[in-house]
Amino acid sequence: MPPPNETRRAAIADAAIELLVEAGVHGVTHRAVDARAGLPAGTTSNYLRSREALLVAVTERVAELHRADMAAALVTTPGAGAETLIAGSLRLAATVQRRRYLAIFELHLESLRRPALADALGRLQASMAAYTAEHHARAGLAIPPAAVPALLTLYGGALYTLVTASPETVTEESCADLAAAIVRGALNS
Amino acid sequence: MPPPNETRRAAIADAAIELLVEAGVHGVTHRAVDARAGLPAGTTSNYLRSREALLVAVTERVAELHRADMAAALVTTPGAGAETLIAGSLRLAATVQRRRYLAIFELHLESLRRPALADALGRLQASMAAYTAEHHARAGLAIPPAAVPALLTLYGGALYTLVTASPETVTEESCADLAAAIVRGALNS
Repeated sequence: MPPPNETRRAAIADAAIELLVEAGVHGVTHRAVDARAGLPAGTTSNYLRSREALLVAVTERVAELHRADMAAALVTTPGAGAETLIAGSLRLAATVQRRRYLAIFELHLESLRRPALADALGRLQASMAAYTAEHHARAGLAIPPAAVPALLTLYGGALYTLVTASPETVTEESCADLAAAIVRGALNS
Repeated sequence: MPPPNETRRAAIADAAIELLVEAGVHGVTHRAVDARAGLPAGTTSNYLRSREALLVAVTERVAELHRADMAAALVTTPGAGAETLIAGSLRLAATVQRRRYLAIFELHLESLRRPALADALGRLQASMAAYTAEHHARAGLAIPPAAVPALLTLYGGALYTLVTASPETVTEESCADLAAAIVRGALNS
């Protein structure tokens, strides 16, 4: 079991994710997070002094959850090719985990106005790209380094489009078609 | 010359675009738009009674500007193929017209919480997709109807990624590479 402090931090970040989706960045205040997480008033500001620290904590929480999901996909679909992994990852992100990624897109737009948040998202993006490369290597996928920028751009863009679409339009078939187009576009150059 | 009412409406929408980029949806109030556009207090609410009507007017203004740019591209690059048109359109949107599309992405996330705004964006998206199809036909590009959903998803996603990236990373070369990947992905199925 994680130490109580970590559990508390995760609960704070998870409540902030819900507020981001329900009300946008403007709805995320220390007070609102305490109320949403059912914590005594003042708890969130004890853990994360500034509003920016609170927003940065959300990006760290999502990165942690994202890494866990990617590791799980490797276990549940051993030997899957790039298309299958990408299709599964897009579908999971746009359905079951939709709120998590919507929260990240809210923070992403806000980060264009907040350099400290932009730095945090930039560091996370770099670490996630490195993790993805390692993940592909462990999965036995040979992605040529030159293809990675287009792959990340197409994947990230497709994620935005799917996560912001009506959830009922995100089907196994539509994700498979899109993953095939991404792989064909990025890798068959 | 357009009638004075239309000029005034355009000035209101343009000021709202600037406020969306500088401060997010929360920064767009009737009063702030009056101040930003240098109009007497009360002008914006005379034209657009509710805050929702004001946000809808921004989506209509961007669609109008987008259509004008597409029509101009057809004149300035006659006979261009899909890759050239897509590369040029992405680069223009992510550099010269960046603020306009950032404003639309702010509204897009907000529309997930505002059904009336979602309806307006949905209608605009449908009309822009129809305009794009007509545009491709006039440009002599044969895009198979089955390829259109993947093409729009990859294009829209790439637009999001480029518009939210640091403008200095958006180069003629990176847009050409990305356009090639989009066309290869969507059309060579």
